[in-house]
Amino acid sequence: MRTYLDCIPCFIRQAYEAVSFTSNDPETREKVLREVLLRVGSMNLNQPPPIMGRFIHQLIQKLSGNNDPYRIVKEKYNRLALQMYPDLKMKVEQSDNPLETAIRLAIAGNIIDFGALPNFDGREIPLTIDEALTAPLNQEMLEDFIDSVNKSSLILYIGDNAGEIVFDRLLVEQLPCEKIVFAVRGQPIINDATMSDARAVGLTEIVEVIDNGSDAPGTIVSDCSEQFRDYFNRADLIIAKGQGNYETLSDSDKGIFFLLKAKCPVIARHLGCERGAIVFYRK
Amino acid sequence: MRTYLDCIPCFIRQAYEAVSFTSNDPETREKVLREVLLRVGSMNLNQPPPIMGRFIHQLIQKLSGNNDPYRIVKEKYNRLALQMYPDLKMKVEQSDNPLETAIRLAIAGNIIDFGALPNFDGREIPLTIDEALTAPLNQEMLEDFIDSVNKSSLILYIGDNAGEIVFDRLLVEQLPCEKIVFAVRGQPIINDATMSDARAVGLTEIVEVIDNGSDAPGTIVSDCSEQFRDYFNRADLIIAKGQGNYETLSDSDKGIFFLLKAKCPVIARHLGCERGAIVFYRK
Repeated sequence: MRTYLDCIPCFIRQAYEAVSFTSNDPETREKVLREVLLRVGSMNLNQPPPIMGRFIHQLIQKLSGNNDPYRIVKEKYNRLALQMYPDLKMKVEQSDNPLETAIRLAIAGNIIDFGALPNFDGREIPLTIDEALTAPLNQEMLEDFIDSVNKSSLILYIGDNAGEIVFDRLLVEQLPCEKIVFAVRGQPIINDATMSDARAVGLTEIVEVIDNGSDAPGTIVSDCSEQFRDYFNRADLIIAKGQGNYETLSDSDKGIFFLLKAKCPVIARHLGCERGAIVFYRK
Repeated sequence: MRTYLDCIPCFIRQAYEAVSFTSNDPETREKVLREVLLRVGSMNLNQPPPIMGRFIHQLIQKLSGNNDPYRIVKEKYNRLALQMYPDLKMKVEQSDNPLETAIRLAIAGNIIDFGALPNFDGREIPLTIDEALTAPLNQEMLEDFIDSVNKSSLILYIGDNAGEIVFDRLLVEQLPCEKIVFAVRGQPIINDATMSDARAVGLTEIVEVIDNGSDAPGTIVSDCSEQFRDYFNRADLIIAKGQGNYETLSDSDKGIFFLLKAKCPVIARHLGCERGAIVFYRK
């Protein structure tokens, strides 16, 4: 999926937020934001948004000297989601269809996204959970998914954000854990989950977790480690969470299941759904 | 009031929207938006936001060859507000304090702002009216205002946006019309009202309307016509509507009454109020 002109104001808003996280010094903030504006003004738009996002956030990291501006918010949302985990786990176990409920909650967790959402502050989480638990979910897709899980010997689960991965854990726990490899990003980028987040939320204790070797806020397969590419090629079933993974993998022919909340108008248009929709989709 | 770093993402969002209104041609849109990014990246921030806004919107007008990108939305909101006018007029006349009700509605009308609000589509209007009619309003300020009106021989009412000026008309009608000069912008800029809007909503039939000779989305007195400056200097009472007029006149010592809805966090911070608050303020 290419970058659209609508993405530009969103990149600048993201950059402003990232800059605010990097430094309290007004001069540094201003200098970095100005540089971002100049660079974005001459960027090539014929690439997926996560490539542009990576470029912008790397630039901010470099110019500000802070290589993980979102560390504090990542830790905050891991903690917050872990506090919610026991209740959510009970919701899954007491529901008529635990797997379906876990899928719905995994999608709800995708609301924890500092890339797509302006001024995200967590207040959206409870409402998103309620919506995800009651919104229509394609039942044929669900059967197809269950069938794929049963037939698979290797499931690659591509995670997205910190905090969100607690919601992913609920889904992972409804799947055959021994078949799953869970991938996180190789380096800090926006609030995307890395290995330290996977450890912090206990994912590493229940499945094999690998980092993908890349610092894109999505999955650019050619940019990933050999280990990741090997799993990607061998997996019988790939689950990709969130907008960034959709933006970078929507053209893949691997029959990937995409689980996400369509938070931005560009993604909603690309998927042909309403903005804010709960998306459970296979190409 | 100077421009803050928070204003930058908002300028780019405004620019994207303005560009979308100027042309359907993707190449033109992209070219213009890129140029805006490059120019904003090197802009001097030590000036009020409307000076930056004017620069950006003038640039868009020039590069796109469209000198009034918001014409269609200005006409739309004039029409929409005129449809609401009879009901609102009745609300004013049947209320215990028609002047106070008219002040509240004039402030509510300030929601019709394509500068401050992302994706404004009018849905916010009914709720804003309800809020403005019930929110606390400083009663001392109201008495001070009534006193000023009674003592004035010349009242300068500085309007803000198209559509909004229908709400201003409700307030103007509760004041001694013969004392009022109503000022609109001299040239199209964002959705700010110009003389053609004043005519379209019938304001010109009830008070003297002048254009201020300037194309800033606010009031930069030194940039205005001699006629406007003369009224500005002679007025015993100045009523200034909206964020742009506040941003450019907040340092004035003319004892201006500011009526606005604090739609953006920068303005809310500057005024020390909640974002979204109904503001009836004199320095």
